[in-house]
Amino acid sequence: MDDILQKIRQFRDERDWMKFHDPKNLAISITIEAAELLEHFQWKDDAEVGKHIQEHGEEVADEIADVAIYLAELADNLGIDLIEAMGSKLKKNAEKYPVAKARGVATKYDQL
Amino acid sequence: MDDILQKIRQFRDERDWMKFHDPKNLAISITIEAAELLEHFQWKDDAEVGKHIQEHGEEVADEIADVAIYLAELADNLGIDLIEAMGSKLKKNAEKYPVAKARGVATKYDQL
Amino acid sequence: MDDILQKIRQFRDERDWMKFHDPKNLAISITIEAAELLEHFQWKDDAEVGKHIQEHGEEVADEIADVAIYLAELADNLGIDLIEAMGSKLKKNAEKYPVAKARGVATKYDQL
Amino acid sequence: MDDILQKIRQFRDERDWMKFHDPKNLAISITIEAAELLEHFQWKDDAEVGKHIQEHGEEVADEIADVAIYLAELADNLGIDLIEAMGSKLKKNAEKYPVAKARGVATKYDQL
Repeated sequence: MDDILQKIRQFRDERDWMKFHDPKNLAISITIEAAELLEHFQWKDDAEVGKHIQEHGEEVADEIADVAIYLAELADNLGIDLIEAMGSKLKKNAEKYPVAKARGVATKYDQL
Repeated sequence: MDDILQKIRQFRDERDWMKFHDPKNLAISITIEAAELLEHFQWKDDAEVGKHIQEHGEEVADEIADVAIYLAELADNLGIDLIEAMGSKLKKNAEKYPVAKARGVATKYDQL
Repeated sequence: MDDILQKIRQFRDERDWMKFHDPKNLAISITIEAAELLEHFQWKDDAEVGKHIQEHGEEVADEIADVAIYLAELADNLGIDLIEAMGSKLKKNAEKYPVAKARGVATKYDQL
Repeated sequence: MDDILQKIRQFRDERDWMKFHDPKNLAISITIEAAELLEHFQWKDDAEVGKHIQEHGEEVADEIADVAIYLAELADNLGIDLIEAMGSKLKKNAEKYPVAKARGVATKYDQL
């Protein structure tokens, strides 16, 4: 992760793009890229999703990477250790959804 | 990243949630969480964003983590090495936006 | 539509909120509200969606209305007649997806 | 609105697309189109947004219409009168944000 963060910073700074990359603009771009990822599965049922991933796997990977790049940069700019934040949030989720109650149940998601 | 992926898989499997976590549903959740992150900056100008991050930094970090957790799981389920995919996409971006042309220019974004 | 636009303008102006409602901020809010609408269907299969709508129909209608209110205001602020724009876009879509080719086929969506 | 709904239904049914247009898929498409609208303002400051709208007004109107078409169809399919739902939600918003407290203040948005 440190290595890829280094590459993200270099890519941005070589182009002098930091001035555009305030938190609000990065969050906008994360949302736009997430929707582009979702577009790959638009209207498709399970079988069609599977076929699409087989045929367009690299494009799907690129969209996932686009979201991840902006997300990693936003965390970096805010001084957040992304891996640490993920671990910390997983712990909170584990308390919010105890195994005994959440096991195999979709309805708990209503409380999100 | 391997360690956090291990925790994500364990969290999901202890709750028997893999059956909900097909690619389309994960992409939906990535988009929803991205919009919740964006909501932190809704209507705010730069100064208000800065103040909000100071006062609600942990909540912002949690939203970033929510997006990252689903994103890492989607990549994992599709057999994609997320860090590798990020590196590969950064290379493509570097070719698409050569420093000489892209430096300090926002208009190039129109071509995204 | 004219009547509801009048109410939207009045609601906004009584609160002096026009200063926040530039096109970029309105587009952000449209996206956030759209994701909140989508959240109602998160993780759910067809049967669960049907049940959810029966039990939470008013909340779903409220989320649809939230998107529509911001959307109608954005069009209004840009001097766009929303109903006219919808008719014009439907004509373009009809040319893009001729009945003979598009009938019952999901794959055409890949070209969006 | 009745007239445009009639056109939307006809466009869909001539192509036999109702089978794709369940509420979850329509909500996905509303979110994707909302993000495409937002993409027009990505990275731009106020002046650049103004210039972009002058030069690409028809494309922006088309994106607004795309969101509106799917939104109107979703409401129609769920038996919701969209204009009525907007009026009803505006009333709720007026109670939630009384003029005396909300006037000119952005911070209230934090409670959304």
